Amino acid sequence: MPQDPFDWIDEQHERRRAAGLVRTLRPRPAQERVTDLAGNDYLGLARHPEVTEAAAAAARRWGAGATGSRLVTGSTELHAELEAELAAFCGFEAALVLSSGYAANLAAVTALSGPAHAGALLVSDAGNHASLIDGCRLARARTAVVPHRAPDLVRKTLAEHGGPALAVTDSVFSVDGDAAPLPGLAAVCREYGAALLVDDAHGLGVLGEGGRGAVHAAGLAGAPDVVATVTLSKSLGAQGGAVLGPARVIAQLVNSARTFVFDTGLAPAAAGAALAALGVLRREPERAARVRSVAAGLHRRVTDAGLTAARPDAAVVAVHAPSPPAAVRWAADCRAAGVAVGCFRPPSVPDGISRLRLTARADLTDDQVRAAVGTVVRTAPGARGEERDASGCRTGG
Amino acid sequence: MPQDPFDWIDEQHERRRAAGLVRTLRPRPAQERVTDLAGNDYLGLARHPEVTEAAAAAARRWGAGATGSRLVTGSTELHAELEAELAAFCGFEAALVLSSGYAANLAAVTALSGPAHAGALLVSDAGNHASLIDGCRLARARTAVVPHRAPDLVRKTLAEHGGPALAVTDSVFSVDGDAAPLPGLAAVCREYGAALLVDDAHGLGVLGEGGRGAVHAAGLAGAPDVVATVTLSKSLGAQGGAVLGPARVIAQLVNSARTFVFDTGLAPAAAGAALAALGVLRREPERAARVRSVAAGLHRRVTDAGLTAARPDAAVVAVHAPSPPAAVRWAADCRAAGVAVGCFRPPSVPDGISRLRLTARADLTDDQVRAAVGTVVRTAPGARGEERDASGCRTGG
Ligand SMILES: Cc1ncc(COP(=O)(O)O)c(C=O)c1O
Ligand SMILES: Cc1ncc(COP(=O)(O)O)c(C=O)c1O
Repeated sequence: MPQDPFDWIDEQHERRRAAGLVRTLRPRPAQERVTDLAGNDYLGLARHPEVTEAAAAAARRWGAGATGSRLVTGSTELHAELEAELAAFCGFEAALVLSSGYAANLAAVTALSGPAHAGALLVSDAGNHASLIDGCRLARARTAVVPHRAPDLVRKTLAEHGGPALAVTDSVFSVDGDAAPLPGLAAVCREYGAALLVDDAHGLGVLGEGGRGAVHAAGLAGAPDVVATVTLSKSLGAQGGAVLGPARVIAQLVNSARTFVFDTGLAPAAAGAALAALGVLRREPERAARVRSVAAGLHRRVTDAGLTAARPDAAVVAVHAPSPPAAVRWAADCRAAGVAVGCFRPPSVPDGISRLRLTARADLTDDQVRAAVGTVVRTAPGARGEERDASGCRTGG
Repeated sequence: MPQDPFDWIDEQHERRRAAGLVRTLRPRPAQERVTDLAGNDYLGLARHPEVTEAAAAAARRWGAGATGSRLVTGSTELHAELEAELAAFCGFEAALVLSSGYAANLAAVTALSGPAHAGALLVSDAGNHASLIDGCRLARARTAVVPHRAPDLVRKTLAEHGGPALAVTDSVFSVDGDAAPLPGLAAVCREYGAALLVDDAHGLGVLGEGGRGAVHAAGLAGAPDVVATVTLSKSLGAQGGAVLGPARVIAQLVNSARTFVFDTGLAPAAAGAALAALGVLRREPERAARVRSVAAGLHRRVTDAGLTAARPDAAVVAVHAPSPPAAVRWAADCRAAGVAVGCFRPPSVPDGISRLRLTARADLTDDQVRAAVGTVVRTAPGARGEERDASGCRTGG
């Protein structure tokens, strides 16, 4: 009798448990009495009545699902309208909506790495999001991983390669919230005739004029050699992703990107919600400035209190924790005190340093920020003295 | 001055154009006067008022988006309820909901191919869906592609390998609608201690008792060595996907599947809609039998008229077309006559044979089926004689 084919899972589970790295799901109720510094709803639009009503109206008018691939029955006029508005808002010629930001990144990297025979090189920042990394793994092209935020090393890599290439980077890195040096990167790419793909997931709604994103802020929107991806699930409060670029690039994706061709179209409710969120942002461009000033306030207050955190380039403030278990305990203590924060530990962090991840939201008041930071500081490892041992054996998060 | 980095796209476009293989998007209006034999809304639930109202209510109650990864802020009690109901309905211990069926397949294959050092083999049916293939490409394991629906060759492959393995198959293949020999496959897997992963995207809602799916019908639901994936975007009329299996398998995915950990949770509207669709299906189990009888009727009528189509194992009837351009013209003529059909051409078909893909829906009346098949037959290549040349230069579809 052969052994159970999943027995290896128990061994991995045991190793995770011993290291304090087991993750479990904790479903939340519809209304919570916590201050949310953990989500990515940067503009506070996920529960904006205009946005949720647009979701409801779209489900009623277009159905609960798209019913097929975008190439068969899954393209509605609502999808087309959202694509036109995303392109116009962000300053690109064309846009293509997919079912998630993850799918958009897989589509863009795999479809734009060039014909296999051409031997293109993918040049990928070491801090890139999992979806860009998976895109590189799926693409039939060689990938050079370059150190984090180092245009000079991108130059060196492109010079050594000497052939067609696509450089791939987050605009704002999701864990630490630091920004890529886009103007420098674009200049290097142009020097060598390489294309540039920027994942603006954390830039849209936060950076650039009225929240048009980091690519727009860098003056790169609409350039013939630049492609951006965005997600509809963070600042736009919905679900889905999009690729923005020259019309011929978008047509190439329509014809060849597997996560576009072989995936059901985005649900109308999400498309309608994202379109309404863009409408709110166009009308209230100050939301983008507000989220940046909330992030600056978060950073000032935590560092004034003696904690370590890098100056935020966008909405994310990452506060260092001494160890994975300390980070878990800290996050749990924050939550118990009414403040939800993100907790990032290996293997989700590049350098082994665990972090609390605090996200700014445009709809947080200064009082909420002050009170929330008070909680983070009060529950910090070291600030609690004896209490730390008393908090005992918490795991998960 | 280096050349434009996207010039290669024009060459590919030109090649596609010359071969008549350019695909373009054709957004549809909210109300169309066509009979839809193209979508995958098998049970007719995407526009069912209970389902669309549930989507609307979920958006209002939970927000337009999940706001974060399922591990951070993206798990609501609604997601948990949907997971419990999916597991209960399909007969599994546990379930995990992801943002698409595509993401669910990437998650399941990559996370269940075992620890890299163990040298597991992935055994993948040659007709598998793109998302399973991409899962195999992303997994750090060797993949053996076995001929379509051949348990004996799976046995041979497992015997030669002699180590840990995961066999991966669609339950119902998406283009031709033929079913995998699940009982035979499961027996072979057990003989060699291999795990079995079945993508039941086109089985859920159509096959098995009350639409519980092909895995349930084969008596494999809940087995310790079997994992299923489903999509919420076809029979359930919404968006999203799920992995169903033993609780330890689901926990492993929560901890290690990148398309779960690093992706925003499914939008509440889609989760609410899928949950409501399951409710309708529980109450009206005859919908599953109806879609099968509509498919049988479609098949009988098209073959009675002299067209070539394999007997359907589920809801999909694939009708052979003489060439890619003929298939495109045929589908366009059907649409002009008020019947939407799918049109599959290389590279989306495994064997180079272009097809019209007709899908059955539980809410089609016998009169609608008769009229629609009349249109398909009347517009068939060969049935039209001289008209064919007159229809001229249509492309796309
Ligand atoms: C930088 C970055 N890119 C892409 C994604 C994926 O987007 P989505 O969650 O919409 O799939 C995320 C987060 O989820 C992200 O942080
Ligand atoms: C067999 C099969 N598996 C998976 C998928 C992907 O599911 P989804 O469209 O929900 O991402 C599809 C179709 O889209 C499919 O046909």
